[in-house]
Amino acid sequence: MSDRLAEFRAFRERMNERILEAGNLEIKRFFALDTRTYEAGALPVRTKELLGLVASMVLRCDDCITYHVVRCKEEGVTDEELLETFSVALVVGGSIVIPHLRRAVDMLDRVNAGDLPAEAGQG
Amino acid sequence: MSDRLAEFRAFRERMNERILEAGNLEIKRFFALDTRTYEAGALPVRTKELLGLVASMVLRCDDCITYHVVRCKEEGVTDEELLETFSVALVVGGSIVIPHLRRAVDMLDRVNAGDLPAEAGQG
Amino acid sequence: MSDRLAEFRAFRERMNERILEAGNLEIKRFFALDTRTYEAGALPVRTKELLGLVASMVLRCDDCITYHVVRCKEEGVTDEELLETFSVALVVGGSIVIPHLRRAVDMLDRVNAGDLPAEAGQG
Amino acid sequence: MSDRLAEFRAFRERMNERILEAGNLEIKRFFALDTRTYEAGALPVRTKELLGLVASMVLRCDDCITYHVVRCKEEGVTDEELLETFSVALVVGGSIVIPHLRRAVDMLDRVNAGDLPAEAGQG
Amino acid sequence: MSDRLAEFRAFRERMNERILEAGNLEIKRFFALDTRTYEAGALPVRTKELLGLVASMVLRCDDCITYHVVRCKEEGVTDEELLETFSVALVVGGSIVIPHLRRAVDMLDRVNAGDLPAEAGQG
Amino acid sequence: MSDRLAEFRAFRERMNERILEAGNLEIKRFFALDTRTYEAGALPVRTKELLGLVASMVLRCDDCITYHVVRCKEEGVTDEELLETFSVALVVGGSIVIPHLRRAVDMLDRVNAGDLPAEAGQG
Repeated sequence: MSDRLAEFRAFRERMNERILEAGNLEIKRFFALDTRTYEAGALPVRTKELLGLVASMVLRCDDCITYHVVRCKEEGVTDEELLETFSVALVVGGSIVIPHLRRAVDMLDRVNAGDLPAEAGQG
Repeated sequence: MSDRLAEFRAFRERMNERILEAGNLEIKRFFALDTRTYEAGALPVRTKELLGLVASMVLRCDDCITYHVVRCKEEGVTDEELLETFSVALVVGGSIVIPHLRRAVDMLDRVNAGDLPAEAGQG
Repeated sequence: MSDRLAEFRAFRERMNERILEAGNLEIKRFFALDTRTYEAGALPVRTKELLGLVASMVLRCDDCITYHVVRCKEEGVTDEELLETFSVALVVGGSIVIPHLRRAVDMLDRVNAGDLPAEAGQG
Repeated sequence: MSDRLAEFRAFRERMNERILEAGNLEIKRFFALDTRTYEAGALPVRTKELLGLVASMVLRCDDCITYHVVRCKEEGVTDEELLETFSVALVVGGSIVIPHLRRAVDMLDRVNAGDLPAEAGQG
Repeated sequence: MSDRLAEFRAFRERMNERILEAGNLEIKRFFALDTRTYEAGALPVRTKELLGLVASMVLRCDDCITYHVVRCKEEGVTDEELLETFSVALVVGGSIVIPHLRRAVDMLDRVNAGDLPAEAGQG
Repeated sequence: MSDRLAEFRAFRERMNERILEAGNLEIKRFFALDTRTYEAGALPVRTKELLGLVASMVLRCDDCITYHVVRCKEEGVTDEELLETFSVALVVGGSIVIPHLRRAVDMLDRVNAGDLPAEAGQG
């Protein structure tokens, strides 16, 4: 796994744990609900992950994009499908999305080059 | 077709025509690209419409939501699938999405109650 | 109660009910969590309502602003305190907030002129 | 002047007056600063109005767009220049800008069809 | 004081000074107004800082969040009150806020572990 | 050229090339359209770059701001004109823009201190 990806994961996991231990019930419930929302229902998991990805991209959140790119790859989404999802985000969200697109493709290359991370964490 | 839906369509079609006639090449190309982006590719049209819908919802654009809800229904998306798409938008975008969710469900009810509009226009 | 305020409430209540009956569990849980978040805790209800108001204002959601202005008045927040909350929203969010400020003050005048609505609904 | 434009102006002027009389000093200063920012400096007024217009458009604020379209026409900006400004907003902000573009062009047509409003107000 | 916090402060102070010396009157007035807005009025300083914090969080600005977390601690806000403020931001702004929540809690831990910075700067 | 500026350029150019080679036609067309939009028309290039800059600033995209600051300097925009453009962004977008203003002025200082980069790339 690339250094940047590993660092991102370590920080996310450490802080998620720290936040869940902090004892605020609303935040804990939000995290549980967030996980639940991407589980299989009428729509399969991979479609839901694509939805999470495009939403993260138009809202321009690099960490969320990284998370959903990794999850999409875990669910077997192809690079071509990811690029089409990026194209929807780009057209809906405009050129302001381009810097995030650059980082998303860079992250995708890192994921493709290395091992897929094994666990699926929060947000 | 409900009055509100009919009014929305009429204004959209009239203004799209007006804008395309105004002679700005970049705007014309953007409109063409926008249409193209939702055509079948590695991802089927219905998945792309769901992507357009969730992006519109987290960016909180009622007209865009209405447009994609109509298109999703034309593509045979079920109400249950739409509700799951709404739930992703709600969790990603937060309670600020709720007023748009109310209007989206209201629009869905109007679409379900009436005839489906026949044409698929711009944006 | 002013017509605009009454209309807003009627639509909100009707659609909230419609949405909760639609059977999507994640949306139901989100609505429950949303209500819970404004209940008294380490911070009193009126501070939480002010937080909800300023967040709604910088995110520029008129329906959310209306809802929290009504709730703030129910909790005994003074007009002077509301204006200071508006001033924080204006300085943080910029002149783009001004049209929402105009509608917020108009809504505040309507609330002050009429009876306070009795119930506290969703979002 | 078209009805919609006249209504917009009347509400804006009435509420601006109401807000300035409400006695919150920070809000008053913000309004004064807002006016000042568009006065001639190193950049001429018409360039500053174009800047205000494109910023309003990517932030998707219809009232702000209407205000700046009117001001641009008062400053002698041509329709072709306005369309190019719209095209920058569209490419930067994406298809989510299209519904606002439709309303902006509609408003421009109303301004072109009628008398230009005489005064230049707040925000 | 942690390195990251110290670095943030040093850059902010150096650039604020640089900007105020640049001679643009509107920017100077905005900075003065920004400071003024958080001074005691009908609402106490600590409530205003909580308002600034929640607004910064839903608008997802890490530097602004850091600034207001530090100011809140200076004003004696407890960690429990901060967590409830975070929960309002999370529910209003959605899961897109989570990466900022992680960094906010990390920053809070750094502030709690070290000396509180003595000065209160701009924005 | 400063290290940070050089690094930014290298990553942008490498990833733009990578993205254009990835074979998604919609993304390629968007990139072409993006370039075209800033070419001379009814409005001169320097005005269009100022429009791109203010739009990037209110949407708070550091990479886009850096790109347009560099392009503005290449087009002979003065520091005083840039500061006025920043002031419009600040007043329209609010204090949430301040951290980006700090980084923009820092980047402007780096551009002024070094050689101007020779090429004009994408987004």
